[in-house]
Amino acid sequence: MTEKAIQSLAGTEDRLPPQWTLWHRLHRAARNQFELHGYGELSTPIIEDARLFIKGTGEDTEIVEKQMYSISSSEGEEANNTDERITLRPEGTPPAVRAYLEADLHKKQKFQKFWYAGPMFRRERPQKGRLRQFHQIGVEAIGGSSPLVDAETILLADAIYKEAGLSSCAINVNSIGCPECRPKYRQILKDELAGRADELCPDCEKRLDRNVLRILDCKEKDCREVVDDLPPIPGLICDECTTHYQILKDALSAQSIAYVEDPLLVRGLDYYTRTVYEIKHKALGARDTICGGGRYDGLVSQLGGPETPCVGFAMGVEATLIAMEAESDKSVSQPNGIDVYVVCFDDSARAKCFEQVEALRSEGLSADMDYEERSSKAQMRMADKTNADFCLLIGELELEKNEVTIKDMKKGEQWTADWDAAGEEISSVIKA
Amino acid sequence: MTEKAIQSLAGTEDRLPPQWTLWHRLHRAARNQFELHGYGELSTPIIEDARLFIKGTGEDTEIVEKQMYSISSSEGEEANNTDERITLRPEGTPPAVRAYLEADLHKKQKFQKFWYAGPMFRRERPQKGRLRQFHQIGVEAIGGSSPLVDAETILLADAIYKEAGLSSCAINVNSIGCPECRPKYRQILKDELAGRADELCPDCEKRLDRNVLRILDCKEKDCREVVDDLPPIPGLICDECTTHYQILKDALSAQSIAYVEDPLLVRGLDYYTRTVYEIKHKALGARDTICGGGRYDGLVSQLGGPETPCVGFAMGVEATLIAMEAESDKSVSQPNGIDVYVVCFDDSARAKCFEQVEALRSEGLSADMDYEERSSKAQMRMADKTNADFCLLIGELELEKNEVTIKDMKKGEQWTADWDAAGEEISSVIKA
Repeated sequence: MTEKAIQSLAGTEDRLPPQWTLWHRLHRAARNQFELHGYGELSTPIIEDARLFIKGTGEDTEIVEKQMYSISSSEGEEANNTDERITLRPEGTPPAVRAYLEADLHKKQKFQKFWYAGPMFRRERPQKGRLRQFHQIGVEAIGGSSPLVDAETILLADAIYKEAGLSSCAINVNSIGCPECRPKYRQILKDELAGRADELCPDCEKRLDRNVLRILDCKEKDCREVVDDLPPIPGLICDECTTHYQILKDALSAQSIAYVEDPLLVRGLDYYTRTVYEIKHKALGARDTICGGGRYDGLVSQLGGPETPCVGFAMGVEATLIAMEAESDKSVSQPNGIDVYVVCFDDSARAKCFEQVEALRSEGLSADMDYEERSSKAQMRMADKTNADFCLLIGELELEKNEVTIKDMKKGEQWTADWDAAGEEISSVIKA
Repeated sequence: MTEKAIQSLAGTEDRLPPQWTLWHRLHRAARNQFELHGYGELSTPIIEDARLFIKGTGEDTEIVEKQMYSISSSEGEEANNTDERITLRPEGTPPAVRAYLEADLHKKQKFQKFWYAGPMFRRERPQKGRLRQFHQIGVEAIGGSSPLVDAETILLADAIYKEAGLSSCAINVNSIGCPECRPKYRQILKDELAGRADELCPDCEKRLDRNVLRILDCKEKDCREVVDDLPPIPGLICDECTTHYQILKDALSAQSIAYVEDPLLVRGLDYYTRTVYEIKHKALGARDTICGGGRYDGLVSQLGGPETPCVGFAMGVEATLIAMEAESDKSVSQPNGIDVYVVCFDDSARAKCFEQVEALRSEGLSADMDYEERSSKAQMRMADKTNADFCLLIGELELEKNEVTIKDMKKGEQWTADWDAAGEEISSVIKA
C-alpha cells in the first residue's frame, strides 16, 4: 500500500460473511417470539432531535451528560431553517415513544406492543463488548399498567434467549417504587449514608446529594460494605408498589423460570418506576448485563403525551453474542456449500458457461463460476473451496453436443445431460 | 399535551407495524437472490472517518461537497486522542472496500462478492421519495475484471426486482471508458461544447471546465438540445473498453431481459470506469432511478489497496418501495391474525389466564389477552380486532373444573378441553 489506509473508527465493527451465524440465530429467535407474544415491528430513525434524549433519557444520566454523538446542524445549505441539535440515538425507548405520539397511535388503541432492532451510539471508552456503535433488540409495551405486562416482557426476553440457545442466564428483579414513595425512601437512604460518607468512594460521595440510588450499584468494595447495611428498597416502597411487585413475582414463580430478587438493582436511566430487571450472563465478566428493562410510567407524559404506563427492555446484541459464543458448541460444522459450480474447460466458452450459470440460478439453484480465466484445475479447486454439491463440466465436447457433464461431488459419480436439462437433473437429485 | 411535542427530524421516517409488508418482500427477495448468486453478507458501521468519502466518493461530488453529515469529534472526554472528522455514511461502496482491505481479505482470495443493506445519510432537501435518512441494498463484486461480472450484477438486480414483484423496470446501460480514453473524449466533448456555451444553463456553464460529463444528464431543455448534437460516448472510448462493453451487451442479450443503451448515462460519483447502469421505474416521476451501479476499477487502489477491478450496484429501498406500491395489487388482504385470544370472565383469575397465555406461547402458538381489566364483552371485541383464529373462554366454571372453553372463531363451534391440553387441541385443529 502506498500510504496509510483509512481505518474504521474506534469502537465500531465490520461484520464479515462468516460472522453472521449467531447474529441471525438471535434475531430469528427474537422475531419468532415477538410474533408469538403479539409485538409489532417498529423502526425509528438513527438521528433524532437531541432534546428527545435530554428530556426522555434524562439530563443527569451518564448517557446524556457524556456519551451523546451530536451533529452540527449548521453545516450545509439547509441549516438556516433548523435550530435543533441532531443526535445519534443512544437508546431506543424515547424514540419509540416519540413515534407512538407523532403517529397519534395513543388515540387509536390504549395498549400497544412494539419491538425494534438496530444500532445505537454512545461515546464510551471502547473495550471488549463495549462499542461506540452497538446494537439493541428491544420491546416497548405502551399503555399497560398491569404487573402481568411486566412479567410478560421478562418471560419474553427469557424465551428469546432460550430459543437462541442460551441456558445460563440469571434474571434479577427489583422494585424501585413510584414518584410517591421514592422521595421518602431516598431521604431514608441519604440519612443512613450521611453518617458514613467518609467510607464511600469519591464518586459516591458526590452521588450522595444528586443521585443517591446509584450508590447502590457501585462496584467499589468499601461502598458495597456500607450498602450492605442499608435497609433494602423493597421494604421501603408504598403499599401499591408492594402489591404490584408481589403480583409480578407470583406470575414469574408460576412459570418454570428461575429469578432472583436483587434489592440493590437500580438502572442508569431516570425514567424507571416500580419494576426494574436485568438478565446477566457469566461469560461477560464484570459488566455482565445482556438485557435490561423495567417500567417507565412517566415517560410518555414527560414527552408531551397523556399519562401512559409503559414497560420495556433492551437487549445488547453484541453482549448477547458473547454469551452465545461462550455457550455454543465449538465443533464448527462445515459451512453449507453452493449447489453448483460450473467449470469451463474452454476459454472461448466463458460467456456460454455464464448463460448456464444464470439458467441454474433462475431455476432456484445457487450457482457460480470463475470469471478470472483460470485453468480448469484451478477451477476444480475453487469448486472444492466453495463446497459445491455438484460441478458442471463444460468443454469442447459438451459444447459440440449441446450437453453438460454433471459431477456429483459427494458420490463422485458423473454423467451427461442435455444442456437445457442440467438444472432439472440436479434439482431432482437434490430432492431425492 | 402540555407543550409542543418533540417531532422526528425533517427527512427521516418511522416505520410502524402495518408498514412492513413490501419492505420485507423486497429484502427477502434480495437475500434469496444473493444466496443463489453467491454474495456474502457484509455490514459496516454507520459512522466512518470523513476522509473515506472525501477520497473514495470524490471531493468534487455533490455528496461530499454539500450532503455529508459530520459529527464534531471534539465533544466528550475521548476527543483528545482523535483528529478524525466523523461522518454518517452517505453511501455503501467506500466502506465496503475499506472493510475488505482492513480485514486483509484481498490477501485471501482475489475475487469476492459481498452484499449489504442499511441506512445512508445525505443532507438533501427532503421531498417525496428523497429522504435524509434513506436505505440501500447493494452489492460489491471485488476483484473481477470480466464483463461477465458486470452482467451478473445487472441480472442479479433484475432478478431481485422480479422476485419482489416488479415487472415494469427499465434497464439502461452505458460505457464511460477508462482512465486511458476518458481524458481524450472529455476533451472532444469540451471542444464541441465550448462553441455553444451560451446555450447551456448556468450550472452547466460552470460544469464545462470542471465536470463536463455531468452536462450529459442535465434535465434542462436547452442543455438537452445541445447534448443531442454531441457524438455519443461509446463511439469515443478505446478498443479495450469497446470490447468490454460488447461482451457485456452480448451477455445481457443472451438472457431474456430487455435493456436499453443510453449513451448519455453518466453517474454522479467519481469512481466509475467503463460500465455504468441504472434501473428506472416510471412510478417515480422525474427522479426515476431505483438502482444505480457500475464498474469502479480505481477505487481500491485509491483507498490504499492493490489494483483491484470491481463492480457493484446500490438499490434505493424507499424508491423501490414506491415502485412496488404502484405495481402491487390494491385489494388489501385481511392481515393474518393471532392464533389464540384468551378471554377472562373472572377478574380475580387474570394471573391464571396469563399462565395459560404463556403456556400457549411456549407451545408455539401466538397468543394474547387483555391486561386492562376490561369487561368480557370488550375482550371479545378485542379478539375480533386481533383477528384471532381461536378464543379461549375462561370463567368461574372452567376454573373450577380445571378446563377451558375453546371457540373456533371461523366455524363458530365451541367445546371444552382440559386446562393443560388447550394448546395441543388448538394445534391439532390448525394442522388438520
